Amino acid sequence: VIGVGLVGAGYWGPNLLRNFADAAECRVVAVADRSRAQLEPLGRRYPTVELLTDAKEVIEHPDVDAVVVATPVSTHYEIARSALEAGKHVLVEKPLAANADQGRRLLEEAERRGRVLMVDHTFIYTGAVRCIHDLVRRGELGELYYYDSVRINLGMFQSDVNVIWDLAAHDLAVLDHVVPARPVAVSATGSSHVAGNPEDIAYLTLHFDDSLIAHLHVNWLAPVKVRRTLIGGSRKMIVYDDLEPSEKVRVYDRGISARGSLRDLQIHYRAGDVWSPRLDVTEALAVVVAHFLACIAGRERPLSDGAAGLRVVRLLEAASRSLAERGRPVELGPG
Amino acid sequence: VIGVGLVGAGYWGPNLLRNFADAAECRVVAVADRSRAQLEPLGRRYPTVELLTDAKEVIEHPDVDAVVVATPVSTHYEIARSALEAGKHVLVEKPLAANADQGRRLLEEAERRGRVLMVDHTFIYTGAVRCIHDLVRRGELGELYYYDSVRINLGMFQSDVNVIWDLAAHDLAVLDHVVPARPVAVSATGSSHVAGNPEDIAYLTLHFDDSLIAHLHVNWLAPVKVRRTLIGGSRKMIVYDDLEPSEKVRVYDRGISARGSLRDLQIHYRAGDVWSPRLDVTEALAVVVAHFLACIAGRERPLSDGAAGLRVVRLLEAASRSLAERGRPVELGPG
Amino acid sequence: VIGVGLVGAGYWGPNLLRNFADAAECRVVAVADRSRAQLEPLGRRYPTVELLTDAKEVIEHPDVDAVVVATPVSTHYEIARSALEAGKHVLVEKPLAANADQGRRLLEEAERRGRVLMVDHTFIYTGAVRCIHDLVRRGELGELYYYDSVRINLGMFQSDVNVIWDLAAHDLAVLDHVVPARPVAVSATGSSHVAGNPEDIAYLTLHFDDSLIAHLHVNWLAPVKVRRTLIGGSRKMIVYDDLEPSEKVRVYDRGISARGSLRDLQIHYRAGDVWSPRLDVTEALAVVVAHFLACIAGRERPLSDGAAGLRVVRLLEAASRSLAERGRPVELGPG
Amino acid sequence: VIGVGLVGAGYWGPNLLRNFADAAECRVVAVADRSRAQLEPLGRRYPTVELLTDAKEVIEHPDVDAVVVATPVSTHYEIARSALEAGKHVLVEKPLAANADQGRRLLEEAERRGRVLMVDHTFIYTGAVRCIHDLVRRGELGELYYYDSVRINLGMFQSDVNVIWDLAAHDLAVLDHVVPARPVAVSATGSSHVAGNPEDIAYLTLHFDDSLIAHLHVNWLAPVKVRRTLIGGSRKMIVYDDLEPSEKVRVYDRGISARGSLRDLQIHYRAGDVWSPRLDVTEALAVVVAHFLACIAGRERPLSDGAAGLRVVRLLEAASRSLAERGRPVELGPG
Repeated sequence: VIGVGLVGAGYWGPNLLRNFADAAECRVVAVADRSRAQLEPLGRRYPTVELLTDAKEVIEHPDVDAVVVATPVSTHYEIARSALEAGKHVLVEKPLAANADQGRRLLEEAERRGRVLMVDHTFIYTGAVRCIHDLVRRGELGELYYYDSVRINLGMFQSDVNVIWDLAAHDLAVLDHVVPARPVAVSATGSSHVAGNPEDIAYLTLHFDDSLIAHLHVNWLAPVKVRRTLIGGSRKMIVYDDLEPSEKVRVYDRGISARGSLRDLQIHYRAGDVWSPRLDVTEALAVVVAHFLACIAGRERPLSDGAAGLRVVRLLEAASRSLAERGRPVELGPG
Repeated sequence: VIGVGLVGAGYWGPNLLRNFADAAECRVVAVADRSRAQLEPLGRRYPTVELLTDAKEVIEHPDVDAVVVATPVSTHYEIARSALEAGKHVLVEKPLAANADQGRRLLEEAERRGRVLMVDHTFIYTGAVRCIHDLVRRGELGELYYYDSVRINLGMFQSDVNVIWDLAAHDLAVLDHVVPARPVAVSATGSSHVAGNPEDIAYLTLHFDDSLIAHLHVNWLAPVKVRRTLIGGSRKMIVYDDLEPSEKVRVYDRGISARGSLRDLQIHYRAGDVWSPRLDVTEALAVVVAHFLACIAGRERPLSDGAAGLRVVRLLEAASRSLAERGRPVELGPG
Repeated sequence: VIGVGLVGAGYWGPNLLRNFADAAECRVVAVADRSRAQLEPLGRRYPTVELLTDAKEVIEHPDVDAVVVATPVSTHYEIARSALEAGKHVLVEKPLAANADQGRRLLEEAERRGRVLMVDHTFIYTGAVRCIHDLVRRGELGELYYYDSVRINLGMFQSDVNVIWDLAAHDLAVLDHVVPARPVAVSATGSSHVAGNPEDIAYLTLHFDDSLIAHLHVNWLAPVKVRRTLIGGSRKMIVYDDLEPSEKVRVYDRGISARGSLRDLQIHYRAGDVWSPRLDVTEALAVVVAHFLACIAGRERPLSDGAAGLRVVRLLEAASRSLAERGRPVELGPG
Repeated sequence: VIGVGLVGAGYWGPNLLRNFADAAECRVVAVADRSRAQLEPLGRRYPTVELLTDAKEVIEHPDVDAVVVATPVSTHYEIARSALEAGKHVLVEKPLAANADQGRRLLEEAERRGRVLMVDHTFIYTGAVRCIHDLVRRGELGELYYYDSVRINLGMFQSDVNVIWDLAAHDLAVLDHVVPARPVAVSATGSSHVAGNPEDIAYLTLHFDDSLIAHLHVNWLAPVKVRRTLIGGSRKMIVYDDLEPSEKVRVYDRGISARGSLRDLQIHYRAGDVWSPRLDVTEALAVVVAHFLACIAGRERPLSDGAAGLRVVRLLEAASRSLAERGRPVELGPG
């Protein structure tokens, strides 16, 4: 069995721990966190796991084959790189790193060492996004027109990264996974409402080579929780509402068609049936864990590999740059 | 009683006609439209109204004191100006004119002639927006943080104006009415999906002098209809959902507060009650009509006067400019 | 063209009038109502229609071929019978009559005179119910398990009939149309909360020969409006929500299957896709009017003929009887 | 600390175990279940808890002061009685017992031994029901008019008890807690759709001495999940939707008022604001556990004591009797 070590027992760490503990293909060897207070409840619940206060001890632990990094973004690079250098496989919480340069180095290190480097882009492993991915890639939607996501709620302010790095990272990962085309420029606007804190509201537009447009709205200051994505195509359209208890994905057989000459163009509306496919309801994080372990066992490249993680980080970086200039478009250039 | 003449019997004209016909303070004298087919059903329903095919005949009609303009935007200026020059009061469908220059001239003409010039910013006369206006202006929300509106649905493509001029005009009118501050710059992105047609999807960000940010999402290509505005303040937040049958406005006693020093800032979340005030349900257009007639009778300045109409047109113009440059911010400058 | 006379210009009459006025196959000759105040606005809107204060004048009017009865239930019988006796076709507002005996006599009179007798069971002419009817009758749902409807809201108290005669009449008409089986007994409970007034809340259970069960909840005292029907079958289930703006009918591929012996029975749950068929959105009352006129022209029997009207009245009668005895089941016996 | 023993590790047992394990005032000594397979995962998660296969061993365990019974209803009586006879305090899953006679004997035994007997009526310990209880008992709703609950979904068929004993037990417990008056008769209808199985759909009406009426709809065969209760009063009305993520309770300032004489009664509708109070979001089961332990420590009578449990069982019994007779009302008589 694969020996797993977890670094970071904050918000997301315990969820990762629970899923690795439930997986038969591995054994959780050790958990490290600077805060003893964070470790204590984990110790009660998982009495066989070693509790450590230094990430280094996990990385260098002889029984640890794979290191899971669930620390603040600013520390991802150093921990992940050390782990790769120690010959360990690595699963990093999203986003992969604090900037593209770091991301690129992690990729290179993983390649050099022949180790699995995976980013926890959790959402792409949900039943909903896997279903949407299949629909889009099979061409069910026709030509893609737009991708519009809203991810807002009150709470979970972070002081080290802005709302884009926190929330939009999720949507950019989904977008990167679902949409075949790659954006060429980003325009972002936003605002901060706590003095000295990063932006708590932001709007991102991703420009593509053709008429496809993507837009993300992220907000830590909303009175209500919304997790909704619209994907429009020439043939069909999708509404993905992650808060719906069961019908998270709805496929609308709706659209327009243009007839006549350019001088006398007539737009016709089409409204057909609506269809909500049954979704796999396995917890996404359990799929993440199983996929990571399977990639280690089979030496395969994960769906959310370092390259995917890097693409997302580059978008985050470009968006933050545009944000500072009130929406001036920032070109992405080649990878 | 005030003699009223209507120019334009297309989509919105019949609604205006119905409300003017129901008002006791006026008499509808004549309706003009180039298309006989549009006039015919109106003739059956209102047998005493004269049916004309030339706007000029309405404007010059001796029994007409006030001209209502419900034609395509590109013709607003000429018809409204002629009517003002003929000494008539004028109510113009939104937006006031096709560009700021035209809008400014209409204002001047109305001033010169001492006539009422009103724009039909219908939404500001709804019970919901009047309630929101009162809450914001009374300071119930505290400092304004953001204004976020979504107005999307499938249909009603227009080929002469883009989706901003069609749909965002509504939200800009509401924003202009509710928010005391004036925007200093606009950034807009969007896309067109019918060759040769204007943009059918657009996103606008309005920048202000302080941390207030406003954002509008308008879309003719959405599979579902959404009419939702979030207004966030330091003390309270509002969700205004125009599609809710009865609880259109919800006031959330929610927010954050920051404590401690800048170095060790702690954000606290506050979640209190939610309150949905009872709203006046009078049809907004009936209020528009009554207000227009009362302004004529009392020589008063309407809430949505020419100046308000001009402010909205300037925003539309700036947004279209930014749109063409993928979001580059366009400064608004002084009026 | 068919000459139409309307008796009753109260709540529903103007809707009928508007639809008959819009139909090309007929001409509305006269409208009668005891109240001049009710007639006046109709006169303004339809200047060619004769306004009368005595139903008799409509019934005996030589240009009237068909009489539409939109008066309180207690007067349906007398007006409809007189009209049939005068050789006129008759469309009666639901319910057909105030008791089964009256209903039976109207049927006989219509048969004797060879005239069309139709009840305005409006809902069975909606796109939603027509779609449900087709699904059920094609066997898509498998064996029918239950029919459960909720029709509640605040308002429209009536003092002459209880809430069953007012609201449940709609659901019984839909049930009678959609479900092939006929109920054998009714059990009803309810309560009145205004001294001297009939019941304002009621619950009806309809028993059938097999395991099918139908239940209706009607309530004039609810804080929210609900119009929702669940229809469960062995293969599929329907949720019909009349307040949904577009997806009024949803078909759930969900159910259970029992395996094993009776001693060791295992119930398996099945949850497949959900599907929302596109519906015809023609106003139901326009379909009612067109159907009535077509039946007159072609001497055909309407979908909601006197017999259907009578079946609904018999259920209303039995339910009221059970209501008075706190739910004691009342057998229906043969028609 | 109080020593706790759990009998029954099926569906609900693990939830109870988790909450007792988290409580500082007690120590979970042992868990018993006939099935080793059920015990195994609990053993992994709680390595210090003794795993037993005989309820007797838990009951007679010298370190066990309180026994928690989470077994099928048919076994509640025997286990709870043995535990009381052994001098242990007892918390029983709802419903208290399989019939009123058993319930009465448990009450007597608890009284005789001076031990705490509590039923796990979980819902009355939720923030939502506690809020509703306060509103009703403070008289905010005025005179109570009706109580209407719907608790339906697909799944969790039980073969030993009908849907009333499973689902309506929850609503009867809430009703018993919130409504001061006691019902005088019950009328119930329902149906079974799996041969040899108990009823899977049922409707209960509870009659009271005055015009208050209560109705419950429970259904294991619904395509959608609904958990909604309406409570109507002369002054205000409540909608309690347990599936709403945050605004579970809404208070509507709506109602009617009757004016004039009985001969000329006029009903007026009143529609004021809607208000959604902030609720305590502590997990209800944690409150149950804390309350049970506090009652043991302080020798206090629990909110959901044996008497409350017995009242609910008597209603369940009467409802099942009426169900067999298609709704014939069954009198409840004095306790």
